[in-house]
Amino acid sequence: MKYPPVHYHKYLGLDKVLDAQNLKSDEYKKHAHDEMLFIVVHQTYELWFKQILFELASIQDTFKQTQIAETEMGRACARLERVVGIQRMIINQIDVLETMTPLDFLDFRDMLYPASGFQSFQWRLIETKLGLRITDRLSFNQAPFYKALSEEQQKLIHVAMDEDSLFDSIEKWLERTPFLQGENFNFWDTYKKAVNDMFAGDIATVNANTSLNEEDKKKNIDGLQNALKSFDALFDEKAFEKLRQEGQFRLSYKAMHAALLIQLYRDQPILQTPFRIVQALLDIDEIMTTWRYRHALMAMRMLGQKIGTGGSSGHKYLAEATAKHKIFGDFFNLTTFFIPRSQVPPLPKSIADRMSFHY
Amino acid sequence: MKYPPVHYHKYLGLDKVLDAQNLKSDEYKKHAHDEMLFIVVHQTYELWFKQILFELASIQDTFKQTQIAETEMGRACARLERVVGIQRMIINQIDVLETMTPLDFLDFRDMLYPASGFQSFQWRLIETKLGLRITDRLSFNQAPFYKALSEEQQKLIHVAMDEDSLFDSIEKWLERTPFLQGENFNFWDTYKKAVNDMFAGDIATVNANTSLNEEDKKKNIDGLQNALKSFDALFDEKAFEKLRQEGQFRLSYKAMHAALLIQLYRDQPILQTPFRIVQALLDIDEIMTTWRYRHALMAMRMLGQKIGTGGSSGHKYLAEATAKHKIFGDFFNLTTFFIPRSQVPPLPKSIADRMSFHY
Amino acid sequence: MKYPPVHYHKYLGLDKVLDAQNLKSDEYKKHAHDEMLFIVVHQTYELWFKQILFELASIQDTFKQTQIAETEMGRACARLERVVGIQRMIINQIDVLETMTPLDFLDFRDMLYPASGFQSFQWRLIETKLGLRITDRLSFNQAPFYKALSEEQQKLIHVAMDEDSLFDSIEKWLERTPFLQGENFNFWDTYKKAVNDMFAGDIATVNANTSLNEEDKKKNIDGLQNALKSFDALFDEKAFEKLRQEGQFRLSYKAMHAALLIQLYRDQPILQTPFRIVQALLDIDEIMTTWRYRHALMAMRMLGQKIGTGGSSGHKYLAEATAKHKIFGDFFNLTTFFIPRSQVPPLPKSIADRMSFHY
Amino acid sequence: MKYPPVHYHKYLGLDKVLDAQNLKSDEYKKHAHDEMLFIVVHQTYELWFKQILFELASIQDTFKQTQIAETEMGRACARLERVVGIQRMIINQIDVLETMTPLDFLDFRDMLYPASGFQSFQWRLIETKLGLRITDRLSFNQAPFYKALSEEQQKLIHVAMDEDSLFDSIEKWLERTPFLQGENFNFWDTYKKAVNDMFAGDIATVNANTSLNEEDKKKNIDGLQNALKSFDALFDEKAFEKLRQEGQFRLSYKAMHAALLIQLYRDQPILQTPFRIVQALLDIDEIMTTWRYRHALMAMRMLGQKIGTGGSSGHKYLAEATAKHKIFGDFFNLTTFFIPRSQVPPLPKSIADRMSFHY
Repeated sequence: MKYPPVHYHKYLGLDKVLDAQNLKSDEYKKHAHDEMLFIVVHQTYELWFKQILFELASIQDTFKQTQIAETEMGRACARLERVVGIQRMIINQIDVLETMTPLDFLDFRDMLYPASGFQSFQWRLIETKLGLRITDRLSFNQAPFYKALSEEQQKLIHVAMDEDSLFDSIEKWLERTPFLQGENFNFWDTYKKAVNDMFAGDIATVNANTSLNEEDKKKNIDGLQNALKSFDALFDEKAFEKLRQEGQFRLSYKAMHAALLIQLYRDQPILQTPFRIVQALLDIDEIMTTWRYRHALMAMRMLGQKIGTGGSSGHKYLAEATAKHKIFGDFFNLTTFFIPRSQVPPLPKSIADRMSFHY
Repeated sequence: MKYPPVHYHKYLGLDKVLDAQNLKSDEYKKHAHDEMLFIVVHQTYELWFKQILFELASIQDTFKQTQIAETEMGRACARLERVVGIQRMIINQIDVLETMTPLDFLDFRDMLYPASGFQSFQWRLIETKLGLRITDRLSFNQAPFYKALSEEQQKLIHVAMDEDSLFDSIEKWLERTPFLQGENFNFWDTYKKAVNDMFAGDIATVNANTSLNEEDKKKNIDGLQNALKSFDALFDEKAFEKLRQEGQFRLSYKAMHAALLIQLYRDQPILQTPFRIVQALLDIDEIMTTWRYRHALMAMRMLGQKIGTGGSSGHKYLAEATAKHKIFGDFFNLTTFFIPRSQVPPLPKSIADRMSFHY
Repeated sequence: MKYPPVHYHKYLGLDKVLDAQNLKSDEYKKHAHDEMLFIVVHQTYELWFKQILFELASIQDTFKQTQIAETEMGRACARLERVVGIQRMIINQIDVLETMTPLDFLDFRDMLYPASGFQSFQWRLIETKLGLRITDRLSFNQAPFYKALSEEQQKLIHVAMDEDSLFDSIEKWLERTPFLQGENFNFWDTYKKAVNDMFAGDIATVNANTSLNEEDKKKNIDGLQNALKSFDALFDEKAFEKLRQEGQFRLSYKAMHAALLIQLYRDQPILQTPFRIVQALLDIDEIMTTWRYRHALMAMRMLGQKIGTGGSSGHKYLAEATAKHKIFGDFFNLTTFFIPRSQVPPLPKSIADRMSFHY
Repeated sequence: MKYPPVHYHKYLGLDKVLDAQNLKSDEYKKHAHDEMLFIVVHQTYELWFKQILFELASIQDTFKQTQIAETEMGRACARLERVVGIQRMIINQIDVLETMTPLDFLDFRDMLYPASGFQSFQWRLIETKLGLRITDRLSFNQAPFYKALSEEQQKLIHVAMDEDSLFDSIEKWLERTPFLQGENFNFWDTYKKAVNDMFAGDIATVNANTSLNEEDKKKNIDGLQNALKSFDALFDEKAFEKLRQEGQFRLSYKAMHAALLIQLYRDQPILQTPFRIVQALLDIDEIMTTWRYRHALMAMRMLGQKIGTGGSSGHKYLAEATAKHKIFGDFFNLTTFFIPRSQVPPLPKSIADRMSFHY
């Protein structure tokens, strides 16, 4: 009674939401039953995209700060995980859409030309706000992706492109991680020694193996030395920057180090939530990739080798975009620099203490 | 080029759909982040309800005919199964909604009073069109369920209540099933004999069992005779009608028989699609029941023992409605009249022939 | 090469695992195709139960300690959430099992008598280890639930019944929560004042409402006063203990308070992981309840009104167990004591400081 | 009582099934908690593979017959759809497996070398029995895929390779489809005319379009003529065979025609079940492809750029296999030959009659 009474129907704006299904096939008096499903699936997708954008904005509000209160971290993490939950759920809508067969689609496909998912402003905004740069994108029909959008939407996309993306904010947050160096402690020297010791041990094991002939020994040792060499990128900033310029990495050297620290010492109280945040970003990237892939398969199923309604060469563009449109790929590659936990050097007590509570 | 060009954004009415999220907590300048999720979840539900109603209408167009072309059956079946697919998918949205914690809900719960799911016109319409009668419904707050709807919606609900529901059409379709009687063939005599033989065999097995004492024998035989007696409802129309008046059955005697025939001889070409249709109706009923149950659990989680926004005593009403609001319960009960396939009498060739193709 | 080479097939013990599908219907030379599905579904369930028990044991290893290192909390939480993930996944196996129709089941059902899910040792162990007490259980056929198990299994169940369950450990962990009282701070006085102020405000609003007549005013104010009275259980230990003896609560007064503190101040760094743990326990309880309910529906679908293979009166027992077999029901009821976050008293700085990091 | 009593535990062979989790990390006294999950996930996969093989064998029993009773079709279809249901369910197990992080995997990864999914006999058998030929497979490490299996398993794989696969049986079944030609009816002449008429109409529309300049007209007409030309493969057996030899098609010309007929006239009673069968085969192929893709993503996540335990260059092999290992790709390509239903020629009454029931 503190507020005026509310009715479900009006509160949810159902007069608007449920009045937005206008079948082209009805307009042209060639009713195609499955057009309703086609519309409803896409509308629910767009509603969920709005929700994802809403969550991302609030997450970005946290991460774009130059100093983030620890009290905000649990909430930001829960919202990222909510995004993951939404994505996992809506990917299954493809199964429902595929109950529309290609022949059913043909009944109204021509009427929609050239409308296509390429024109989804919100999807483009999600990609951009997460951190997909225009240079990361597969070009399509010789035109930048935003040309498919209305002028107003193009302006908004450009604003988003000019702002820090979540990737940018996460990178800066990682770069600010303390603990990487301290009084009498340089983590990377310690880690490098652990890596070298591990490989030296492995090489010694090979040399001591009497059942191997010289050729096999050499082959194995070469393999181990190559693996060891791949760690140069971790310990040598110049080597890293060279690879980064070649596109092997996107995160800065410092951010990469912080991300590795979070992974290796995730049990430390102060790193428990950051670890979950990195996991959630990995999940988001992986699900978006899976989504694109399933979309590509569906396009192939619906269109065969015909060209898509948007004029694309169908599933081919989608399949290629799938592989290329990664955002947090560095978190996947980071795994290369892991060593077994039993060989990870323990933290000095002074550092571990600062990572914990004291009450 | 046969049709004017179409843009994705306009085609999907996104200006309307994406402009219908008006947070009460923003209106009252007490922004509650999770209200957006609350709105979007319910809007997507309503979109899917519209889709379900659309499919049900087309299915009813088929079944309300007094003679149904076999060419329509596959399509009607596929659409029923699509409804099942949609329901299975949207039930998982509850997991996403539950990422909103009770404390988050409290931030805006008062602002929505007395809006509640009881006011969902489309949900009520789905129930009514499937065949839930007002007499099947748990009464709530001493008022008929439709009082929660707007006057216009009440009129539409009454129209739906006066029309044949899908249950009614399915019942009539079942009653029209041929094959139940024919030249020199009365299926039910044959089936009754098979049932009697089966039980006589079981009783003989018990009597011959030397490891049982007299008391155990008697107990077992009493059990078998009771089980046999439960078949009276199947073979004796008066016994059936009595039970029907007591609410044990809803379908007519004839429709019940046809449904059993479909189950027992589902491999016959002409019964393959009808069998799937009965399965889909069972699935729909089961998922709606599961939905209500999960809704009840969520209400308990969100509200504890507080009363719901709609004034209901929370999850209690929902839990009770769950058990009561069955529509195709007869298809569940039918199982009672099954006997193992090895003892089901084979169809006479003349009947089997008429159930098959000839090319 | 540090370890002897391993082959996938041998490592996974597939000779054993894939040789354990022995169809009774084959043994009796009456092959029933769907018996394989029936066996495989139950075997995968049991494998997942083993996994759940394995996770629960490691979680219990953490919580049974009288002092828990904060470094263990993230891991324990992740494992609880893994249990939730497993449960959410395997509940969908019911959809697959239901592709076996009742008639298919009849082909081999008699051959399995009296085997039934009541005899699943691992399921009973999960319930017991989570904290379902024998007094919480619906009795069945006048015998305690463990009578359906082998003697060896009964012994193991009794060991589990005598040990602390996860419920017990969680209760003790909650009771040890610091922060509830401190120098110059008694949280519950502060909270009680906030609750009283809130209700006083609400009552004043009603009294000031000129559009209400005296009768409606009285009715509303009575409602508010009843709601306020329900908080007595929170503030008055004797009132709480009385309700606890009546079965309204299971957790101790102190543990209940701690759980409420975690909910209300979940954003504090030190409470972020405990909050997730409580959420996960709620999820586990809710999914187990849903599982039982779906199991009951399936039983009804498979058996109609026949008795279950285990001799139970089918779905009825299951449906009743569903409502009764709650373990962490207090976490659901806790919601009753929430007040909107805007009215929750802020923590004194000295307390908030102790809940945070300092680096 | 007709059969000896059965106990759940013994019936399900749980002594075997639950005794097959032998952690290498325990054997080497370096307990790695997540190894249990790793084992259980793979064991449940193998159990489901056994179930899939069991269903495929029964489906093949139907389709390998040179004359298939229509009474078997509904059952074969239901079993194919069950396979789809199982696949859709188990693909979600990847989400659960991914709760094991790469660092957790490193704890025991070395101990499993060189075990890997490449050594899954049952998975290879599923692929082979569905119809994946050795020539369709991406070669790996210069050795044929079966070299990873035990000698006994290799023999069984070779038996399967020598037998007709489901693809082969489906092809023959399609080739036997009647109705393609008949008294005074040659379907393909009729369809060809419909296709030509449609394109002629489209070209006329372009020519009559006054808003297009000559260049655009030419471009459009060229596009339409190319599209029309792609139908040559459908109408000209030689053109088809040429493309088939180039690997564009795998099905025979005749089977391809039958598959198209089923799609275009799926509403005819006799084609309703065959249509569902083709859909299910499409689904199976699509899900297996999605599965391989998700597996590739998981490998990338777990291993970064390290090589897989099986010695493969990790996710790269998997990603490439994903694109190549299609079995029923023709059913996807078939879509290219669809025309809108409104332009599909109606069946002559004599043909339609033979496709229907007569009772």
